[in-house]
Amino acid sequence: MGAGMSDDVADELRARLADSPFHTWVGLRVESASPGTVTVSLEAGEDHRNLQGLVHGGLLATLADTAMGLAVRTSVEPGRRHVTIGMQVQFLRAGRPGTIMATGRVIRAGQQVAHAEATLTDTAGRELARAQGTYSVSPIEPEA
Amino acid sequence: MGAGMSDDVADELRARLADSPFHTWVGLRVESASPGTVTVSLEAGEDHRNLQGLVHGGLLATLADTAMGLAVRTSVEPGRRHVTIGMQVQFLRAGRPGTIMATGRVIRAGQQVAHAEATLTDTAGRELARAQGTYSVSPIEPEA
Amino acid sequence: MGAGMSDDVADELRARLADSPFHTWVGLRVESASPGTVTVSLEAGEDHRNLQGLVHGGLLATLADTAMGLAVRTSVEPGRRHVTIGMQVQFLRAGRPGTIMATGRVIRAGQQVAHAEATLTDTAGRELARAQGTYSVSPIEPEA
Amino acid sequence: MGAGMSDDVADELRARLADSPFHTWVGLRVESASPGTVTVSLEAGEDHRNLQGLVHGGLLATLADTAMGLAVRTSVEPGRRHVTIGMQVQFLRAGRPGTIMATGRVIRAGQQVAHAEATLTDTAGRELARAQGTYSVSPIEPEA
Repeated sequence: MGAGMSDDVADELRARLADSPFHTWVGLRVESASPGTVTVSLEAGEDHRNLQGLVHGGLLATLADTAMGLAVRTSVEPGRRHVTIGMQVQFLRAGRPGTIMATGRVIRAGQQVAHAEATLTDTAGRELARAQGTYSVSPIEPEA
Repeated sequence: MGAGMSDDVADELRARLADSPFHTWVGLRVESASPGTVTVSLEAGEDHRNLQGLVHGGLLATLADTAMGLAVRTSVEPGRRHVTIGMQVQFLRAGRPGTIMATGRVIRAGQQVAHAEATLTDTAGRELARAQGTYSVSPIEPEA
Repeated sequence: MGAGMSDDVADELRARLADSPFHTWVGLRVESASPGTVTVSLEAGEDHRNLQGLVHGGLLATLADTAMGLAVRTSVEPGRRHVTIGMQVQFLRAGRPGTIMATGRVIRAGQQVAHAEATLTDTAGRELARAQGTYSVSPIEPEA
Repeated sequence: MGAGMSDDVADELRARLADSPFHTWVGLRVESASPGTVTVSLEAGEDHRNLQGLVHGGLLATLADTAMGLAVRTSVEPGRRHVTIGMQVQFLRAGRPGTIMATGRVIRAGQQVAHAEATLTDTAGRELARAQGTYSVSPIEPEA
């Protein structure tokens, strides 16, 4: 795949996130995207800290969920859509304020089910968390 | 346990959340609390919707994580602390804007490990998601 | 539902397990069954112990998987079938040789996805493990 | 690490499995081992099939659990031991009778918690399942 195609994929995802109130509110950015792999980032700041001054686990879960969901989106066939049915996160290290990157990858995208995984790292390259997601895939129903 | 003791537990947790930038920013409230069980709520509004107008899964994960973490906090022995090592969420139904409640319950709180679960419901009583959390428990280390 | 109907459900599941080489080999028994809830048991003996003399975690996972899968089987509509897409187990206490019971319950059985949970206990009533399962549901395809 | 050291690690694990009634009964073999990574195999045969003639999911969970547990064993510090507190499996493809390999890898082994993952493949190199495990690590208590 040429760089141009990756750029197109990333631009389409950026346009989608710009239309999503939640993603705008949280401050998520699409860093790069190619079919099956998407990296998003978040500048974790004051609002994202818990009582210990660490990045809240729910925010790491949100980053992982978004990176995996967008990766699955690049992989399902035209005319089909995906819905998240489950996710899990292993927390490996405490996250401190600063840039956090989450890369989601599709493990398998079938006709009815898709599986994905994500890895979260900080700018020092430390792995903060891993996640896995499961998705139900189905035809897009025509609007009534 | 008398109602007074439950009120004390809830008040202490509310004071903690008020000091947490993340929880204030997200808008989480402690509804009720007793040793081993804590209910939090969120008024899911415009900011919390994804492109389909549904409540983002990451936000449901955040609610579950908070309810379970606070429930574990009420259960660990004095002088010990807990750290989240993993969580998983089963998404059962799409969440629409409105009040979402998450009740976290401790399944087992041991000397080194704690397990918890959470149930998320909307105001119509529909179960939106279930979650499980795993925690490492250890002595609070004296500050150097 | 009358006891007779539950007996019929249990008898049908027993007949199925009797035809399954794996379940016969492991020694799993159907204790009781009603639509959406199935209890299976295993007499954990010499073969099922690990080096520490405790029941191996993989065997507990097998019990949970079987109880949940059978519970889902009682709940999917006629003409549809289910495939396991994921499961997770929280290990709460060490299992010792003796009878272990696993009760699987359907949380939600939809047209495309089903969710279930299981609880494992020993004869003293101690909860050994909890599990969650996720299933893809689809029409039974006519044989070619 | 030289090949000799890996051979020593594998030989020690083989000796341990030989002493475990469960592993002998199931028929698990250690294929290779080095610090932090262990591959085990199983010849899935008649006994391991479910009603559809496919390898039972509980057996895949057992393989994953064993590969991850042994990998963690090679990584915890002397004088410390690990206990499995949770595992999850994503089932990607149906397993057919024949050799199944499971490679467990340590993601992080800390003083109190360890995380591992496993990948299961058949002889055609198809990925059948992925798994994640979480472990509590603690000092070995002197016998009373």
